[in-house]
Amino acid sequence: MAVEPFDTVDLIRTKRSGEPLGTAEIDWLVDAYTRGYVEDPQMAAMAMAIFLNGMERREIKDLTLAMIASGERMSFGSLGKTTVDKHSTGGVGDKITLPLAPLVASFGVAVPQLSGRGLGHTGGTLDKLESIPGWQASITNDRMLSILSDVGAVICAAGSGLAPADKKLYALRDITGTVECIPLIASSIMSKKIAEGTGALVLDVKFGSGAFMPSYEASRELAQTMVDLGNDAGVATSALLTDMEVPLGGTIGNALEVRESAEVLAGGGPSDVVDLTIALATEMLTLAGLPDADPAAALADGRAMDTWRRMISAQGGDPDAPLPAAREQHVVRAPSSGVLATQEALPFGIAAWRLGAGRARAQDPVQAGAGIELHVKPGDTVAEGQPLWTLHTDEAARFERALESLEGAWSIGGSAEERGPIVRDRISG
Amino acid sequence: MAVEPFDTVDLIRTKRSGEPLGTAEIDWLVDAYTRGYVEDPQMAAMAMAIFLNGMERREIKDLTLAMIASGERMSFGSLGKTTVDKHSTGGVGDKITLPLAPLVASFGVAVPQLSGRGLGHTGGTLDKLESIPGWQASITNDRMLSILSDVGAVICAAGSGLAPADKKLYALRDITGTVECIPLIASSIMSKKIAEGTGALVLDVKFGSGAFMPSYEASRELAQTMVDLGNDAGVATSALLTDMEVPLGGTIGNALEVRESAEVLAGGGPSDVVDLTIALATEMLTLAGLPDADPAAALADGRAMDTWRRMISAQGGDPDAPLPAAREQHVVRAPSSGVLATQEALPFGIAAWRLGAGRARAQDPVQAGAGIELHVKPGDTVAEGQPLWTLHTDEAARFERALESLEGAWSIGGSAEERGPIVRDRISG
Repeated sequence: MAVEPFDTVDLIRTKRSGEPLGTAEIDWLVDAYTRGYVEDPQMAAMAMAIFLNGMERREIKDLTLAMIASGERMSFGSLGKTTVDKHSTGGVGDKITLPLAPLVASFGVAVPQLSGRGLGHTGGTLDKLESIPGWQASITNDRMLSILSDVGAVICAAGSGLAPADKKLYALRDITGTVECIPLIASSIMSKKIAEGTGALVLDVKFGSGAFMPSYEASRELAQTMVDLGNDAGVATSALLTDMEVPLGGTIGNALEVRESAEVLAGGGPSDVVDLTIALATEMLTLAGLPDADPAAALADGRAMDTWRRMISAQGGDPDAPLPAAREQHVVRAPSSGVLATQEALPFGIAAWRLGAGRARAQDPVQAGAGIELHVKPGDTVAEGQPLWTLHTDEAARFERALESLEGAWSIGGSAEERGPIVRDRISG
Repeated sequence: MAVEPFDTVDLIRTKRSGEPLGTAEIDWLVDAYTRGYVEDPQMAAMAMAIFLNGMERREIKDLTLAMIASGERMSFGSLGKTTVDKHSTGGVGDKITLPLAPLVASFGVAVPQLSGRGLGHTGGTLDKLESIPGWQASITNDRMLSILSDVGAVICAAGSGLAPADKKLYALRDITGTVECIPLIASSIMSKKIAEGTGALVLDVKFGSGAFMPSYEASRELAQTMVDLGNDAGVATSALLTDMEVPLGGTIGNALEVRESAEVLAGGGPSDVVDLTIALATEMLTLAGLPDADPAAALADGRAMDTWRRMISAQGGDPDAPLPAAREQHVVRAPSSGVLATQEALPFGIAAWRLGAGRARAQDPVQAGAGIELHVKPGDTVAEGQPLWTLHTDEAARFERALESLEGAWSIGGSAEERGPIVRDRISG
């Protein structure tokens, strides 16, 4: 048995007392955790000590690099194209990846979107696309490279070989109350994105009630931390801070969001989804060396839609097939006339999840048709009896708990609170 | 499957944010941890959150009571005698239980000393007594009661049924860097002592380099917390704060400490051991309703020694048998003449442990004869070449690492630092 250079309890005590961990200590900790020498309870205690005592910028960088080193690194060097990726910290109704990836690819840039499934109240990009008949999330690396070369955009499941230490730590944080912690979130996201081998990266960091981290200040700090990590590692990285106080667009749920994404790609769709898609596309294209590209034009003239259709087909999906619909609907109508004053993202996300759009455990299935249509947005005038939301599910028994979540989550009044633009700030390296 | 009334992650988040946990939450947490529903990584994160954010007095009491409720409670009600117990937080050369239990019992008070084995640099009372040929640590509850009734004093292994939640949590804290935490230490010690069913309890809380918690202020806070817990639970409890800056007495190691204890019971022995034994005996006898008892007289006239001989015989030991001696000795001599200025407890404890007197893992054996004789104490005048310490072990190869630990742990100078009395303070309910 090899002699270990550090003692696990010593390292926990160092972080417990608020001292920084050294580079060699962090490298060893992540490696020893990956191979099982450092046990889950020890890493849980360490994660709580990091949560409460923080990490310096140098430590966060060391942690990120150590998690990258725990697995394989991909490379898109053979493509001969600029690659640029987007990552969102997740929100309610956030379907932006779907129109964005083909939109950006329509300018000749390669967009490799390694994505995940949903857990809790935020949906997963792969769950959404799987509502398209025939579409497959899992493809080989060779197939991914060939789609990137031919079509330019690919959205697929990340292989298990990327940052396995992060995979293990993420599952542990989920059960130990150590999720909402900037050093741990930043290193988790960035280790996967850097290992994935993208040349540039745009981060969509959400704030507001439907975001992972509701506070604007904390979200800004998270964004800055990740932008620094990316640029330090040689990945051109910038971030947009975007509003997730209200649900994004007019739909929440898998097939419902695919439908709305197709509307955006056809030149229509809700203005907030269009605005955010164009803002992120502009940012990605700028990092890819095309600051003068006009993404709005590519949505209007069908170039983005054409790339979408080829992207879906390349993974076995039929872009013309009817999308699955839920068996049961329930319409919530306005109890009085006035203006829709408030619409809180989080309870709407939870309601959609309870209708079957999301899962509580990683192994649970999702319902393709479940979710919520939002017929009005804050500031819209409503008349008594007008439909506000349509709830969709395959099991009528789910309506009650979903409606409970919506109680108090919206209100009708004389006026709506003024909201700023959806993109509130931009952070670059 | 029963529905659980609380969510583990919610409780961790509560403590993480510095809020107190409610009584029902703590009850559930300890019960759910004992039955395995709350997992080790979750309890490790909770322990670190408690370590860093603390607990209110009410929470510590709830935690203690919940750990008591996790197992069986003993009762000495059938004895018809007052029972009083002593607990030490542990130190180097701390053999006080050995002379103390028979001394107090010689006044007609019952002394049930449920004890443990050593781990790390502090020795274990059972390890020490096991160096007496024939002596058995494990006896049945019935046998314990009959010895208490006949002899008055019993020192034996605690059954595994007392506070099983504490047993599980203690092992977890050991590997997760969450040991030195007053709420967790106090609830661990007091849950076992209250479950044991003693009527009164005297705590010997150590401070100084050889103590579990070196700071005087932290030791005082620990003592006050435990005294409150005991009195709240109906156990008359007081504490002495005692100095563990230098090793206690003239011996460290199992058989060596038994020999010294017998000297004290014969009316001799080192003055610090005699002083502390008498102070603790006075405190115990006072709590037992005998404030005028004269323990010094019982040491001088052989009553305590008589009880010791009967106590050892009752558990199969031969009080007249020669004690085991180590095969190898190494004498350290004074390099110059002067006064022994310093003698730090911790490195002497580690040296004895490395000689074989203690164990690194719970399953390791100990050497009965291993340890260190201290021929001088701070303030004593020494002449060049005079023996200072004799190291004992069965394996000569162990001398080198033991001597390394002693390097810099003592010094000869012009004078020694003045030390206060061994008992520095008394805390009562």
